[in-house]
Amino acid sequence: MKVFIIGTGLIGGSFALDLKDASENVQIYGIDQNEAHLDEALELGVIQHKATMDDLGEAEVVYLAIPVDAAMKLLPEVLDRISDNCVVVDAGSTKEKICRIVEGHPKRRNFLAAHPIAGTEFSGPSAAIRKLFLNKTNIICEVEKTAFKLQEKAMTIFNAIGMRIRYMDPASHDRHIAYVSHLSHISSFMLGKTVLEKEKNERDIFDLAGSGFASTVRLAKSSPEMWTPIFSQNKENVLETLDEYISNLKHFRELMASNDFTEVYEEMNRTNHIKTVLNGITENENLKTLENGK
Amino acid sequence: MKVFIIGTGLIGGSFALDLKDASENVQIYGIDQNEAHLDEALELGVIQHKATMDDLGEAEVVYLAIPVDAAMKLLPEVLDRISDNCVVVDAGSTKEKICRIVEGHPKRRNFLAAHPIAGTEFSGPSAAIRKLFLNKTNIICEVEKTAFKLQEKAMTIFNAIGMRIRYMDPASHDRHIAYVSHLSHISSFMLGKTVLEKEKNERDIFDLAGSGFASTVRLAKSSPEMWTPIFSQNKENVLETLDEYISNLKHFRELMASNDFTEVYEEMNRTNHIKTVLNGITENENLKTLENGK
Repeated sequence: MKVFIIGTGLIGGSFALDLKDASENVQIYGIDQNEAHLDEALELGVIQHKATMDDLGEAEVVYLAIPVDAAMKLLPEVLDRISDNCVVVDAGSTKEKICRIVEGHPKRRNFLAAHPIAGTEFSGPSAAIRKLFLNKTNIICEVEKTAFKLQEKAMTIFNAIGMRIRYMDPASHDRHIAYVSHLSHISSFMLGKTVLEKEKNERDIFDLAGSGFASTVRLAKSSPEMWTPIFSQNKENVLETLDEYISNLKHFRELMASNDFTEVYEEMNRTNHIKTVLNGITENENLKTLENGK
Repeated sequence: MKVFIIGTGLIGGSFALDLKDASENVQIYGIDQNEAHLDEALELGVIQHKATMDDLGEAEVVYLAIPVDAAMKLLPEVLDRISDNCVVVDAGSTKEKICRIVEGHPKRRNFLAAHPIAGTEFSGPSAAIRKLFLNKTNIICEVEKTAFKLQEKAMTIFNAIGMRIRYMDPASHDRHIAYVSHLSHISSFMLGKTVLEKEKNERDIFDLAGSGFASTVRLAKSSPEMWTPIFSQNKENVLETLDEYISNLKHFRELMASNDFTEVYEEMNRTNHIKTVLNGITENENLKTLENGK
């Protein structure tokens, strides 16, 4: 099976590694506008062949794993070039706009809109790791708009790399993901900024940094190339989450300023409920970051 | 050597485990107002003997690892009860107030003010783990006010469990730690609160949560009993960090609202510098959380 990966970075590269491990007869073709990344992906064995957009006619599966603004521009052209039996799956963190842009495309039924809830703060072909998708949720949007046989082909692949499937409409996806992913990145980036600014005046402040800081600021290492278009495309939802986050921070600040530490305690005590919610997420994911970080 | 641990939770318990491993002739005596915790610590082998405040006269070393408000109340009494050759080390996350309260105490020279930059989001005797302090920084305040022979005794112990020593005045400690530790906890608690509030209306939102959310919200599992008094004692510094954090978040929000995504990119790009700062912290600490979490 000829599988074309467009974007040979963390997501595309990790997808390629697991898919190749999963079945003998898979050949991975890489397409990347960054020639250096493409060479690196080949050297690392992430892909078996370098390819270009002109080769897409041979593709049986195309996995589109590039920043969401680039994906919007490229997806229609990819659909124009593929054969009728090829399924194109994207991996973007926003789903409404990409679904809208191909709404009327003659090959809409060859496209499956997906978002794998998997990743690390690292990027590029060297960030590609095995088993990144194992037991992770893969959000599928507008599945009914994809040809049934091509849905089946995609599902076989998702099963092969161990993903759990969940169906959702694009609007709900973008609203929910703003809370559990996009807001986390902003809170982390701004935490990093706040401490970096302080360090300019107070030297060696990071000698005091421990696991707590490292964990909360981890996402501030993420790629601006990837995240800027996500915030742009999901602007309204992200602004809503930011407003609620800022208002919660202000409230906590006022409780402290007015010495209402009974309520400060209650705020934290109620939020401890997050423990039950996080069961099963943290450990696996920390492990993944670990392996990657080494 | 008779070592008394007051507070047999995560910090006191982990200190006890490593110290016992480090030298044959150490006997660990546990004191805890929570009788159930004391029994648990004994069963888990975290301590070898249960003890009370009345036994402190026999202590050669006392390690005070209880919430900082309780430590303020208890430390003078501990100093009243110990012998002249006993050193009392605290582990509190705030240092100004505890140093001030014992300023005029006749046994001030028996006290060493310390803050180990080590921990996880878990608490209680069952959270105690080995090697928690290995290669971690131990901040020592007002070392000159501790009797030299007792400094030596404490340093021998810190070396035995593999801690790096750093000296700092209490005011600088409290100002710096507000940025790299206290603010991280608030940002994480409020992130958890924001998403939990949203989940009331939008079900299953956490099916979309991945590693990024788990990492940024990890500290929201921390103990309110421990953190409320920290925020109270370090109020002025924490309010300053909160104001800067909130203002950075508002600025980011305005950049998004006005579609200035070039500057949104730059904000994240500049903050990526945090990568270099975090080298060496993340992996070890994630590993520790991991072992603990299992």
